[in-house]
Formats: sequence, C-alpha cells, structure tokens
Amino acid sequence: MKKITNTPPSLPLPTLERLSALYSVLESAATSGVARLSSRELGRLLGYPAHLVRKDISLLLKYGNSHEGPGEGHRGYAVEGLLALLSRALGLTSKRRACIVGLGRLGTALLHYSEESFPEYEVVAGFDSNTNRLELISTRIPLYPAFRIPEVVMREEIEVGILAVPPEAVETTVERLKAGGIRGLINFTSRPLPPSEGVWVRTISLRAEMRVLSALLTAGNPSQKGDIT
Amino acid sequence: MKKITNTPPSLPLPTLERLSALYSVLESAATSGVARLSSRELGRLLGYPAHLVRKDISLLLKYGNSHEGPGEGHRGYAVEGLLALLSRALGLTSKRRACIVGLGRLGTALLHYSEESFPEYEVVAGFDSNTNRLELISTRIPLYPAFRIPEVVMREEIEVGILAVPPEAVETTVERLKAGGIRGLINFTSRPLPPSEGVWVRTISLRAEMRVLSALLTAGNPSQKGDIT
Repeated sequence: MKKITNTPPSLPLPTLERLSALYSVLESAATSGVARLSSRELGRLLGYPAHLVRKDISLLLKYGNSHEGPGEGHRGYAVEGLLALLSRALGLTSKRRACIVGLGRLGTALLHYSEESFPEYEVVAGFDSNTNRLELISTRIPLYPAFRIPEVVMREEIEVGILAVPPEAVETTVERLKAGGIRGLINFTSRPLPPSEGVWVRTISLRAEMRVLSALLTAGNPSQKGDIT
Repeated sequence: MKKITNTPPSLPLPTLERLSALYSVLESAATSGVARLSSRELGRLLGYPAHLVRKDISLLLKYGNSHEGPGEGHRGYAVEGLLALLSRALGLTSKRRACIVGLGRLGTALLHYSEESFPEYEVVAGFDSNTNRLELISTRIPLYPAFRIPEVVMREEIEVGILAVPPEAVETTVERLKAGGIRGLINFTSRPLPPSEGVWVRTISLRAEMRVLSALLTAGNPSQKGDIT
C-alpha cells in the first residue's frame, strides 16, 4: 500500500497555510482601498516576522514562474498584483463545487454563511439523514437525504465535502462521498480524519485551536517578545 | 513600539499546531483502547511523514525536560504517557476560562457545543448586543448584553474570547475584551485580526481552509505521492 501524505509537491504545507492567511489580509486591504503594503506591515497584520513574509512570497514567485512578478520595491508589494498571483497559485481562478453534510446547528450555520458569494467555493448541495430536518431549513441551496450523496456528488461534479455530522456518522458519510468521487474534505467533526487514497483532508477544530492558544498563553505574553522583525 | 509575533518562545508554531493535531489522534486512540502507536501509524493517521512525527515528539521531550519520557521503543509510543506529556506542554492541566461573543447562528452553535465538557476550555459567559436574542437562547451558560463584556471578563477571570460577531462589530468587541483583560482570542469572523500587545490570536476560517484545500487539489492527488515515509 502506498503511503499518503498531505505535503503538496511544490509549496510546503506551512507556506500554503501562511499564503492563505496572506490572501485574507490582502483581500481586506484591497477592500479598504490600500494599494501597497510592505513585508513589515504584512508581518504585523499577520502576526509573524517580516522575513517570513518575504520568504513565502519569494517561494510563491518561484512556484508561479513569475520572476517578473510583484516585487516588494521601496513602497512595498502591489496588493492587487499579489492577490492575482496568489489566486492562481492557490487554484482560486474557478470556484470549487462543494456540499455540506450534516445540517445540525453548525451545518445549518455553515449553509447560511455559504449562501454568500466567495471566490473559493460554491455550495451546490446540502445533505442530512433526517428528512424532517431538511423540510425545516429555508435555503436556496438544494437539500437531499444523505443516502443520495453518491449520486448527487457525481452528477453535480462536487469536489469538496464539508463534514458537520456527528462523530458516529463520519465513516458512512466519508464512504458515500468517496463513492461519488469527492476529492477534498473539510472536517468540522470532532473525529480525526486521516487523508486517504485520492482525498485531501483539512480539519477545522475549535478544541485544536484552543490547545494551540493554550500553549501560547502558557509560554508567555506576546508583548514580552521584543523586536524580532 | 514593540513588534508583536505569534511565534512561541520555545516550540515553533508549526510544531505546536502539529502537536495539537497529535493530541486529537492520541485522545481518539485512547478512547478506542489503543495502548501504543508507532510514528509510522501516527503519521498515517495525521497525514504527514513518520520522521516529522518523531521530530515533533523529540522537540516535545526536550521542551518538557523529559529525556526519560515515553520513547518510541519497538512497539511504538505509549499513548497515555504521550497524552500526559502533551497535556503539560500545551498547558491543558487546567481548563482555560472562555466566553463567546456574538450569538448568531454560528455563536449559538458554538455555545451549545461548548456545553459539553472538554479538557481545553470552559465557556463561562456568552455575550450579544441584541438583548432580545439573549432571551431566546436556552442554555445553562450565563448570557449578558455586550456592553457588560469588560466587567464580566474581569470578574469571571476569563482568559479567552471566542469571536463570532459580524465584521463591523469586531473592533468594538476586541476593545471591550481587552478592557476586561483578555489574553487570547479565537477569531471566527471573516475579518483578519492581528495579534496585539498582550493578546494572542488564532483564526478559524472556512474560506482560508478552502484555499489551502484548493491549492492541494490544484497541485495533485495524494495517491500519486508514493512512499515517502
């Protein structure tokens, strides 16, 4: 059996994660009409040193073969140019078709949030095993009973499944999504979900983030770090 | 002005993030009655190479001054021993007191989820600026109008604020939490939130995770990676 890894072939995963956060910051700056930002300013907004911002952007330029791309210059990086480059590198030039599985409190909140338009994804289906629940949810996104996952995922060419089911339903749900040809999962459940043959997994966990925060709080106070940029 | 950084003094942030995921996997294994796991098995469950698991655990042992700690041995690491060590390193030996601010669909879902007991945190207050909304939520967690944040956070010695407010309310909310002496924030809002003097920030964003997933999907298929462990 082949070993599975979450490491992407070109850009290291921690770099991808930081570039994704960089995208948020740049998008927010662009909305506010900011045209240029230096690595020092970006580092302050992101919460890590300027040299790491420069390193990530230099990897991004190499990856995109854009040696002529937006350099920092003495007035900083061009926000729009960097956003366009990131958009290509992160594969955001077309939206990923997604579905939400499990329409309890969290799943329903995610469904309503996803009715807004984002460059990253479009939710084209919602699923729940409780058909009574489906009737009570008011949304413009088509909803289906969970047993129809394989058929709908295949027909609608859904690439990404957003999992918000109870822990005991994870296994069956993942099998159904795989049967439909799913390629990526966002795991909102409390159960760890390893990547498997052909399927990438990203886990979103309040408890996991709380542990990281707890470690940072235990280690010390950010104001005591001094100037390290 | 001092520069702020999210890098912890001892363990690098990416290591902390992986150790937090390791905790989830070990906790799940312990619940299933699994006593030992090798770095190879842990790597498979976590989705990254075994050598990275070994590196993180070796850093953890150094950090905890536990050179006599649970080594891998030929039957793997002792699950319970490693959990205890992680629990100390991540500062989970006592629960962090937390509050949820913003009780819309997401905030209310988080509130009900947080009524369960976890080793990481205990939610001791919920806040919303809409007092009518507060009356409609049925929970055993005390709820307060948002203007009372500084007073309640101080009195209840709340360390962590979980932000689920609309983007336009972020600034005021963070000011109020800081006035109460908050030390850490979990940012569920769509607005990037830089760490500031004395306050650590962790952002949870479906869109950011969707971008990372999109980059992985663009780069290739996990089944085509071959054996790299």
